[in-house]
Amino acid sequence: MTELASLTPQHFLWEVTDRIATIRLNRPDRKNPLTFDSYAELRDTFRALVYASDVDVVILGSNGGNFCSGGDVHDIIGPLVGMEMKELLAFTRMTGDLVKAMIGCGKPIIAAVDGVCVGAGAIMAMASDLRLATPSAKCAFLFTRVGLAGCDMGACAMLPRIIGQGRAAELLYTGRVMRAEEGERWGFWNSLHAADALEAAALTLAKALAAGPTFAHGITKTQINQEWNMGLEQAIEAEAQAQAICMQTRDFERAYRAFVAKETPVFQGD
Amino acid sequence: MTELASLTPQHFLWEVTDRIATIRLNRPDRKNPLTFDSYAELRDTFRALVYASDVDVVILGSNGGNFCSGGDVHDIIGPLVGMEMKELLAFTRMTGDLVKAMIGCGKPIIAAVDGVCVGAGAIMAMASDLRLATPSAKCAFLFTRVGLAGCDMGACAMLPRIIGQGRAAELLYTGRVMRAEEGERWGFWNSLHAADALEAAALTLAKALAAGPTFAHGITKTQINQEWNMGLEQAIEAEAQAQAICMQTRDFERAYRAFVAKETPVFQGD
Amino acid sequence: MTELASLTPQHFLWEVTDRIATIRLNRPDRKNPLTFDSYAELRDTFRALVYASDVDVVILGSNGGNFCSGGDVHDIIGPLVGMEMKELLAFTRMTGDLVKAMIGCGKPIIAAVDGVCVGAGAIMAMASDLRLATPSAKCAFLFTRVGLAGCDMGACAMLPRIIGQGRAAELLYTGRVMRAEEGERWGFWNSLHAADALEAAALTLAKALAAGPTFAHGITKTQINQEWNMGLEQAIEAEAQAQAICMQTRDFERAYRAFVAKETPVFQGD
Repeated sequence: MTELASLTPQHFLWEVTDRIATIRLNRPDRKNPLTFDSYAELRDTFRALVYASDVDVVILGSNGGNFCSGGDVHDIIGPLVGMEMKELLAFTRMTGDLVKAMIGCGKPIIAAVDGVCVGAGAIMAMASDLRLATPSAKCAFLFTRVGLAGCDMGACAMLPRIIGQGRAAELLYTGRVMRAEEGERWGFWNSLHAADALEAAALTLAKALAAGPTFAHGITKTQINQEWNMGLEQAIEAEAQAQAICMQTRDFERAYRAFVAKETPVFQGD
Repeated sequence: MTELASLTPQHFLWEVTDRIATIRLNRPDRKNPLTFDSYAELRDTFRALVYASDVDVVILGSNGGNFCSGGDVHDIIGPLVGMEMKELLAFTRMTGDLVKAMIGCGKPIIAAVDGVCVGAGAIMAMASDLRLATPSAKCAFLFTRVGLAGCDMGACAMLPRIIGQGRAAELLYTGRVMRAEEGERWGFWNSLHAADALEAAALTLAKALAAGPTFAHGITKTQINQEWNMGLEQAIEAEAQAQAICMQTRDFERAYRAFVAKETPVFQGD
Repeated sequence: MTELASLTPQHFLWEVTDRIATIRLNRPDRKNPLTFDSYAELRDTFRALVYASDVDVVILGSNGGNFCSGGDVHDIIGPLVGMEMKELLAFTRMTGDLVKAMIGCGKPIIAAVDGVCVGAGAIMAMASDLRLATPSAKCAFLFTRVGLAGCDMGACAMLPRIIGQGRAAELLYTGRVMRAEEGERWGFWNSLHAADALEAAALTLAKALAAGPTFAHGITKTQINQEWNMGLEQAIEAEAQAQAICMQTRDFERAYRAFVAKETPVFQGD
């Protein structure tokens, strides 16, 4: 286990307060595009979060009124156009590795999305566990607009699970913007908040999760992704094992003792 | 095949009328918690339902204005806190076996939910085939509140299939109450009914199903669970086989004869 | 590769204009039922579409105010009642092969549904990629009404992915009509249009897709079905490979060149 509060990433903003890490891309003048460097550093940071002893929840925030404009046209798309297959696959695997790292980081991730949230930015929101947005959030899986397929970083697998197959197909084939109210109605956004209330809402939620049984949260995250394509009977057995592990934590006992004493439990993540 | 009308369960109410079995937990003063004994007896009853010759549909009803408050804190959670892993796993497997038995019982199950529906109670509603509720139904997957993970009795596999991955994640991480109108909007509840109309609505639905081709209903139940993680092509072949079986039933012929004669078919479940 | 514009199907209407093929069943007086012959010819046509060099998008349209009334009672259900298992299975496999052929045809399919859309007609809408409907569209998976199970042509696998498990169970067990507004709210219909605007809406959407990167659309269609029951990590790797393929198309380069030149890209499907 290592402490990540002192991490000094070069390609995004990073802050750890009260066991909550906040990440923000930091080119607000260009709506926060991703570059080769920020992709790689994000991937490495989520991989490091697995072992972080001082972080329980991650917030992926917006910056300057926007979340992320996706892969930078000049820094990423231009070079890709000239690459050979070996390099292209190395790139698409790196972007996929970012999603794998987010899914495997062991802590709940809350996306707090204002403004533009497109391309790989929409994927990062999709790969988060919980998603808050503002009424002006514009989310688009616009890969088709740049001549590519909708299958980017897991979108064809994940998006149908979140909003249903028919709606996912429409967004992936057309690349059109999902309006904020649609996204809420379809289950993509967990809730909408005014722009000046978004940060506070994300922080309130993050604090509530950080005050919960964080070891158990990690098991929830593992199982909700691990059971993706299990048979129903296998999933039930997997949960029997996973929950039995949680029943040996002190947090389970703390909750019981607090209930008996008519107190609020104070969880400690072990 | 055995008749279950004369069953005399010790730990819940049981009634069979017009080929419809109704189950109600029966500690209304405590909002109908589950105990070790009622878990086991429910599991055994759903297992027996596979062979029941006198039951076509099951209603899981409410009692005293509530559905089920989940595992009893004193009868279940207290003892669990002191158990070794071997015993804990035996318990979580028993609870999972109840869900497996519900899924495998071969008859449609209709949950009729009023008031409190939390913890393992929410799981029993989730594992039913159809779910009716009242506007005051309060459903919460509150495992995180007692220091546990959201992966209980299949929740991480089943809940995302019902309401979508994002909404499921919110309920499982936070343990918060899903309000009745949310549940209807999200597809968890099939419909809402005033408290004094809930029983009648469930019974009407149960009678309609019992008057249908009940052998075919059993095949529908098998396939909708069996195809959970099949590939699409495999699922289509599986349905070709399953439906060909149904085409050899007399109910299929009865429907055709009735249609030709401009009559309403009278199905008999064979 | 072959040209399909000159195809002359015997059992449905067929037209190819601007690389968009439109199919309409053609017994409007009987709400366009399917027959053994039209099933087989539809299956063969969707199989041929894989190699079509002159079609990029398919519209499944309505005719005379209705989409399709399902398998014809006299032409199909009557004969089935008298068949042996070997013949029954040959039939259910043929109907399943139509769905497999639709899924595997490599081009996006848009269903434009007015009026009656039931039984195998509802399945054809379900197996399309995008679904537009009118406020009077009546969609019912009514297999249970003819004594059969809900598992027909992949319904138990596909419908839960589109509208959620609970709503799918209700439609499949009861055979009831899904009203148009329900279907839109549940994500079955992508959008509703007045009856006299339906055709234009479908055509506008089809033209937009045909003007897109059609090779990439084919990959989107492959992946969204192929990843159905992959694990999440496997799906992400599959997409890394699939998208790397698309990054070697000229359409990807065309999009980049157009962006740099501040022009609208003109995709050519290679």
